[in-house]
Amino acid sequence: MNGAESLVETFLANDLDLCFANPGTSEMHFVAALDGHPDMRCVLCLFEGGTSGAADGYYRMTGKVAATMLHLAPGFGNAYANLHNAKKAGSGVVNVMGDHATYHNVYDSPLKGDTIGVSQAVSHWTRASATSQDVARDGAAAIAAARSGNGQISTLILPADTAWGDGGAAERAQPAPLHRPDDAALDAAAAALKAPGAALFVGGPAAHDPLLPRVGQIAAASGARITAPLFLGRIARGAGTPMVEQLPYRGELAQEVLKDITHLICIGTTPPVNFFAYPGQPSVPSAPGCQITELCRADMDVTYTLDALADRLGATNTDYPTRPLALPDAPADGALTADSACAVIARWLPDRAVVVNEAVTSGLTFPDHSLTARPFDLLTTVGGAIGGAMPNAVGAAIGCPDRHVVAMIGDGSAMYTIQSLWTMTREALDVTVVIFANRSYRILHFELMAMGFAAAGRNAQRMFDLENPTLDWCALAQGHGVPAIRVETTAELTAALEDRHTTPGPRLIEVIVP
Amino acid sequence: MNGAESLVETFLANDLDLCFANPGTSEMHFVAALDGHPDMRCVLCLFEGGTSGAADGYYRMTGKVAATMLHLAPGFGNAYANLHNAKKAGSGVVNVMGDHATYHNVYDSPLKGDTIGVSQAVSHWTRASATSQDVARDGAAAIAAARSGNGQISTLILPADTAWGDGGAAERAQPAPLHRPDDAALDAAAAALKAPGAALFVGGPAAHDPLLPRVGQIAAASGARITAPLFLGRIARGAGTPMVEQLPYRGELAQEVLKDITHLICIGTTPPVNFFAYPGQPSVPSAPGCQITELCRADMDVTYTLDALADRLGATNTDYPTRPLALPDAPADGALTADSACAVIARWLPDRAVVVNEAVTSGLTFPDHSLTARPFDLLTTVGGAIGGAMPNAVGAAIGCPDRHVVAMIGDGSAMYTIQSLWTMTREALDVTVVIFANRSYRILHFELMAMGFAAAGRNAQRMFDLENPTLDWCALAQGHGVPAIRVETTAELTAALEDRHTTPGPRLIEVIVP
Repeated sequence: MNGAESLVETFLANDLDLCFANPGTSEMHFVAALDGHPDMRCVLCLFEGGTSGAADGYYRMTGKVAATMLHLAPGFGNAYANLHNAKKAGSGVVNVMGDHATYHNVYDSPLKGDTIGVSQAVSHWTRASATSQDVARDGAAAIAAARSGNGQISTLILPADTAWGDGGAAERAQPAPLHRPDDAALDAAAAALKAPGAALFVGGPAAHDPLLPRVGQIAAASGARITAPLFLGRIARGAGTPMVEQLPYRGELAQEVLKDITHLICIGTTPPVNFFAYPGQPSVPSAPGCQITELCRADMDVTYTLDALADRLGATNTDYPTRPLALPDAPADGALTADSACAVIARWLPDRAVVVNEAVTSGLTFPDHSLTARPFDLLTTVGGAIGGAMPNAVGAAIGCPDRHVVAMIGDGSAMYTIQSLWTMTREALDVTVVIFANRSYRILHFELMAMGFAAAGRNAQRMFDLENPTLDWCALAQGHGVPAIRVETTAELTAALEDRHTTPGPRLIEVIVP
Repeated sequence: MNGAESLVETFLANDLDLCFANPGTSEMHFVAALDGHPDMRCVLCLFEGGTSGAADGYYRMTGKVAATMLHLAPGFGNAYANLHNAKKAGSGVVNVMGDHATYHNVYDSPLKGDTIGVSQAVSHWTRASATSQDVARDGAAAIAAARSGNGQISTLILPADTAWGDGGAAERAQPAPLHRPDDAALDAAAAALKAPGAALFVGGPAAHDPLLPRVGQIAAASGARITAPLFLGRIARGAGTPMVEQLPYRGELAQEVLKDITHLICIGTTPPVNFFAYPGQPSVPSAPGCQITELCRADMDVTYTLDALADRLGATNTDYPTRPLALPDAPADGALTADSACAVIARWLPDRAVVVNEAVTSGLTFPDHSLTARPFDLLTTVGGAIGGAMPNAVGAAIGCPDRHVVAMIGDGSAMYTIQSLWTMTREALDVTVVIFANRSYRILHFELMAMGFAAAGRNAQRMFDLENPTLDWCALAQGHGVPAIRVETTAELTAALEDRHTTPGPRLIEVIVP
């Protein structure tokens, strides 16, 4: 058994059986080891950003860690943006980055690069195996790191000679135990929640099943409001979910939501902060003087914390108010706007859908329209690096083959990791990709104005607009082997959405919006 | 004048007037500053890998530094792979990476990331401006760094408040002087070149105009051979160029070329090293005992070194043997193979074409076929990170509007930065993109065998083959606004190539090969 085989056996011994791969020569023994273990599922992505984003989406929906296979330094660089998103989402990922044989790395060969440096710039845990005998132990440590703290980015660098040399036996991963708030902090938080002006601010595992109902009970028993960031790895929404108030994108609107809150108790997330700074505006939307308690960070024991609060509040069997089922109105016909498209999609959403929303401007009203839709999980680009949605959809669909996945993406964003379309067809994934074709980086027009500038001039327009030439999304989809349709009215969009059972596998709908 | 404006004025004051951009919100004041300076040419790329690869291609063909505009941490990550290629090619690039306002960066906002860490993992020079008053000075230092050492990767991080705060006046860039070999080293090298078994090993500026003729003179006067790496940022080839022997890809074949060489004098490049290590094989292809002299590293004064050697050898007016003009034979008709396609392309190449060859396996015989073609410059993916060719072609075409650019790319490679097709049409670039559609990562099949394994099994096949679904390159090109044609015979390929004058701007030819 060589080092690479000892790594694959360590993966399987620890229930890690999925690898999103974009291999290169320095990973060849790892490839061969995977070849010898058909119980490892290998999913090819045609760009490394697809691998890391898919592992992120998979973790968000399953809580299970998958591996990525990445080529040395530049390959990892290509995966970096979606590892950033995964990190911010609290997803666990084990990256396996090949490297040159240790003795070859003394030379300035073409692919020699700073594998450790680029990894450390985004990973919680980085290690380069020193010898082939270490690989199983290092692999177990990598899995343990990825599973620690509710999910971390872990990167094992595998020099080629540690892959091909003699390996040790498979080892067991032992994730670090989760930290818990102490009793005094829990007592104080339980008391604070009952005071006027108190609110929970929840994220991480607290924002979805199985823990979100517990949050609803705590709020009902204490009288506290439930607030949450706009961008979350996963949040349960629609009928039957508690009355969570997610913050709007713009700081001034978020301030309005938080203006009466005098004490925020954060569980599973960091305190609220605006996406960007603007001249003369505050960085945080919470009211001046609002007390903020970081009771349970995202990497701490959220289950224990919520149970302990519910115990203290006598809330373990409390009923709590939930969103009713009331399908949103949507215009039966008419020219599409981003808003009407969001309404149509929210109305149509099948039960237990998984929605990935990276339509930064066009999808802005989707959260409102979908408040009382059929229950679904919503995934957003929590690290702000566009290009997450399509790979997230790949991973979510692989993790939840019994649920329909909908990816709502702006045309600008969708270009970053468009290669994921191919993987959707290769793996026959049940995904509807909705492209909002407004033919611009619309958000940047808004941001330019938010910074106090007048309308974009020639240079800015050439950098913000996607016209000349127009992207043809039906052709792009077809090129990747995905059937596609272009729609320009709400009736056409409704018909296209409802058509999903006629074709298995993925499909793309290009929604033309102003 | 704010900090961003002081940066743009510093760029223009130093003859840096081109920016390959993929902007985000944190760069908004930089965008506005560019908007106020229409003499800065802004070229939009729909993915950051396009910006860095284009800046690389532009530098290779012009020797001029361009800027990139990149979004904070993840945006830089997306540019990383092609910055790696640019670094290995010896290209100078000034990256401007936005960042949060300094006071906002104390919060864990979605896009907060390790901007300095990810930059340092690939840049020669990294600096984050501390105040808006520093930006002009920092910008001048960034340009100086990018222009030092014959071209370096330089990254200026621009926190939003340093962009919008009051800036200073434009400053002048002062690149560091180039180091030179001392007289003793030059004397020894000149003597060594005259000894039997001596060879030059050239790269960097020594491999193309205006310096390559000097290399030819030195070789003719001394009797030394001229060797060079296979992968070079730019090498002059075809009729009229000196008799340079580029090393083959595989180490055992490179060994064969170098076997009689007892002394290698390296100018503008590091000593020969194999691309990868293989079990039981040496890392370097030079003969055991071969003396290696690093006379002039890539970042030293190559012009001075070559002139000094020519002086010592009395070679400043020496005639030297060159490749004759003899268009290669190519089959007039028949089914296409990668080899026959390379012959057809080499035969057709217009005078002074710029060829970017990233067809890793399919383009393998192109160097031989094109030895006596019409003179051209050849650019290769010198850092080994696939996804460089299409952006390189964008930059080369912008830098050399009077030359036809041909990008030869494997279908696997071309998927990494496919968004560059759109920029080719947006900028009306005179580029022919040839996609070798063998529908696999063919190189990996070869590498698996080179590592001593039998044929790929199910998992390996699923990771190496691009079938199921088949990529439709004509649809992909059309989706990006680029006209395309699919060819399956040598006659069809010849006709398609010769058709170039009927359509201005870019076109794509999908070459179906086994």
